[in-house]
Amino acid sequence: MIPFLDLKKINAPYQEAFQEKFQAFLEKGWYVLGDEVRAFEEEFAHYCGVSHCVGVANGLDALRLILEGYKILGKLNEGDEVLVASNTYIATILGIKQAGLIPVLVEADINTYNFNFADLARKVTPLTKVIMPTHLYGRLADMEKVSAFAKTCPELVSGAHKLLVVTDSAQSHGAKDASGKRSGSLGDASGFSFYPTKNLGALGDGGAITTNNPQLAEILRSLRNYGFEKRYVSKYLGINSRLDEVQASLLRLKLKNLDADNEKRRVIARRYLAEIKNPKLTLPQWSDGNDHVFHLFVIRCEERNALEKYLTENGVGTIIHYPIPPHKQEALVAFAQLDFPVTERIHREVISIPLSPVMTMEEVGKVILVLNAF
Amino acid sequence: MIPFLDLKKINAPYQEAFQEKFQAFLEKGWYVLGDEVRAFEEEFAHYCGVSHCVGVANGLDALRLILEGYKILGKLNEGDEVLVASNTYIATILGIKQAGLIPVLVEADINTYNFNFADLARKVTPLTKVIMPTHLYGRLADMEKVSAFAKTCPELVSGAHKLLVVTDSAQSHGAKDASGKRSGSLGDASGFSFYPTKNLGALGDGGAITTNNPQLAEILRSLRNYGFEKRYVSKYLGINSRLDEVQASLLRLKLKNLDADNEKRRVIARRYLAEIKNPKLTLPQWSDGNDHVFHLFVIRCEERNALEKYLTENGVGTIIHYPIPPHKQEALVAFAQLDFPVTERIHREVISIPLSPVMTMEEVGKVILVLNAF
Ligand SMILES: Cc1ncc(COP(=O)(O)O)c(/C=N/[C@H]2[C@@H](O)[C@@H](C)O[C@H](OP(=O)(O)OP(=O)(O)OC[C@H]3O[C@@H](n4cc(C)c(=O)[nH]c4=O)C[C@@H]3O)[C@@H]2O)c1O
Ligand SMILES: Cc1ncc(COP(=O)(O)O)c(/C=N/[C@H]2[C@@H](O)[C@@H](C)O[C@H](OP(=O)(O)OP(=O)(O)OC[C@H]3O[C@@H](n4cc(C)c(=O)[nH]c4=O)C[C@@H]3O)[C@@H]2O)c1O
Repeated sequence: MIPFLDLKKINAPYQEAFQEKFQAFLEKGWYVLGDEVRAFEEEFAHYCGVSHCVGVANGLDALRLILEGYKILGKLNEGDEVLVASNTYIATILGIKQAGLIPVLVEADINTYNFNFADLARKVTPLTKVIMPTHLYGRLADMEKVSAFAKTCPELVSGAHKLLVVTDSAQSHGAKDASGKRSGSLGDASGFSFYPTKNLGALGDGGAITTNNPQLAEILRSLRNYGFEKRYVSKYLGINSRLDEVQASLLRLKLKNLDADNEKRRVIARRYLAEIKNPKLTLPQWSDGNDHVFHLFVIRCEERNALEKYLTENGVGTIIHYPIPPHKQEALVAFAQLDFPVTERIHREVISIPLSPVMTMEEVGKVILVLNAF
Repeated sequence: MIPFLDLKKINAPYQEAFQEKFQAFLEKGWYVLGDEVRAFEEEFAHYCGVSHCVGVANGLDALRLILEGYKILGKLNEGDEVLVASNTYIATILGIKQAGLIPVLVEADINTYNFNFADLARKVTPLTKVIMPTHLYGRLADMEKVSAFAKTCPELVSGAHKLLVVTDSAQSHGAKDASGKRSGSLGDASGFSFYPTKNLGALGDGGAITTNNPQLAEILRSLRNYGFEKRYVSKYLGINSRLDEVQASLLRLKLKNLDADNEKRRVIARRYLAEIKNPKLTLPQWSDGNDHVFHLFVIRCEERNALEKYLTENGVGTIIHYPIPPHKQEALVAFAQLDFPVTERIHREVISIPLSPVMTMEEVGKVILVLNAF
């Protein structure tokens, strides 16, 4: 059996270093917002090419807090609208709602799995204030188009300002655009998740926000910590959303290998793209580059459920990311009547096949053989 | 210098066991909502004497999620009022606001530092639905009075139901009432924090909810996990608020010694109460028992700032819990005009002196000597 994802194997090489870090952590006696979080924030900001990184408890909180921060800065108000992909993980949408803003869902493009830009333009209203692309599956959204759209939008809606661009980078740690700029530096602010399965995964929950806006960063440092201005002095209605010291210390170790790990992912993706040849399967479209870090390798098949069964029977682990689109989830019942045929088709047809930096080429070869024989 | 709190010393005896747990954790390869969280939940529920415990990311989220859970159960609605101590840590009030409810602050009693019950009765309105005592500094609120109040309240307000009793147990792990029932089992639901400085402290953030209500517990398990009913299927507008596996595994080790640690705290408290004899100082009122676990030993002094300076100069670490009452915090500016003379006096006069299970009797003796010479 080739497991869909072998996290044990991914983390095994770090075992000794993790133990040493943990020992040092125990000896320090400082467990909350200390040196390790500070050091990780600096290193991750530097890695992403931004001036500020704020560690938080998870990726969902990261998105929510960015929007809360902009509300405090006076850039957003309760009830403002956020353009967001209908084809995203539901947390993107939860983050918007939890900040008291209105998610406005946008149809997907069947090739990029991201925004259909024609639909995006149709969804703009005088209340639109933010555009929030998800770099889904590890591939950057077309940020040139997004930026251009965010800038020209005022012409569409009289009186509106340039839209804020907030990116959901939970699945795209390390991805670079054509000019070499990384995920996390391609908008006004960006939210990351370090959920264990992510390309940069903690050993528990974790998240971060990256931005070049110093005012926003300062507010976020307060908002994650009960709204404290300093100890016991609350300036804002904050929450408790801190990246744990111990997780930060482990992430620092793994960050060093992120680029190498992403390249291993791309090597496998290239083989899949070259060698999977089965007319029943639609592979991801990708012109070789660094704009995709293959958090997931997602293929499509009209007979998805049969394929899923077949792969299991033939020893290939799979997961469906995701079986139900956000607008059809019970939690978002107010969206149930919305119609996104492309997004719905994607959710009906997708299946993720194994891809991770610890897969052997033998395993990759077997996955290819099995898929070609379907 | 006697430090206010020496967390390194508190955790030092566990160092080897922590390392072993961490090794086991690494070898398992399962980092989120796994066996350790499940086992801790069972053990902590059993310890508190309730049927359900739900681990969450921190104490603030615990309080907020309880109220959100009751909203889903149809017991609370946005805009309902919650009676809460004006003399509490601000997180209690933040939790209420974040759940979309209205905190109604209640004046403190100068002896118990908890509710002034006469003021509590005055604050009831037709919107009052919850009473939310904080077991502040480690001492149980008078839960007999609270329960009686929660039950008789319908007579005060026509049409109202019995009030829900939600306790903030963040400072009172293990405290027992006269009948032997523990903090966490004395209301409809209770929120705990495992912030590192707590009587049961993690090595990072953590929290939990205890309740005997199975419906509430089930909803909370979903709400802490994106509102999932099962993987990728969202029933509710949930958040991400999970107790980390690694923290749960460390808490399990420390839970075994909680009763012994609390007794060590009481031994020190007894000495302080018997031996600090200085007319300028007001000591906590306590009739010896298990209803106080002395999370903090808080004394009062009219010349508090002079005392603070004096203690520092004489090698006794102190902290002020807390310098600013919630209604005077910038974050709660809408409450700024409220008038709570007793709460304000408490905040003006309190100072916490060192008390922890790792203090030596020599240190305790020195603190007493220094205080008596003020
Ligand atoms: C675009 C976007 N925005 C915001 C967010 C929100 O970020 P967070 O709030 O940090 O979650 C996400 C998160 N997105 C994540 C998470 O929300 C997560 C719960 O579900 C999906 O991730 P994924 O499918 O990788 O996770 P999973 O738990 O189903 O595990 C996948 C495999 O990995 C194995 N496994 C898993 C764990 C946890 C383990 O310890 N050991 C192990 O062996 C089991 C499975 O075989 C989402 O993509 C996102 O994708
Ligand atoms: C009633 C009530 N309800 C809800 C809550 C919210 O719960 P959480 O959301 O889990 O915080 C609280 C939390 N209440 C806590 C927390 O919110 C916390 C930030 O501030 C106070 O706790 P405390 O004064 O013990 O913490 P502190 O960080 O100021 O540290 C005290 C001393 O301990 C030392 N120290 C501290 C740390 C963190 C360390 O790693 N190493 C170390 O040596 C430094 C200081 O000398 C509150 O009582 C509460 O009291």
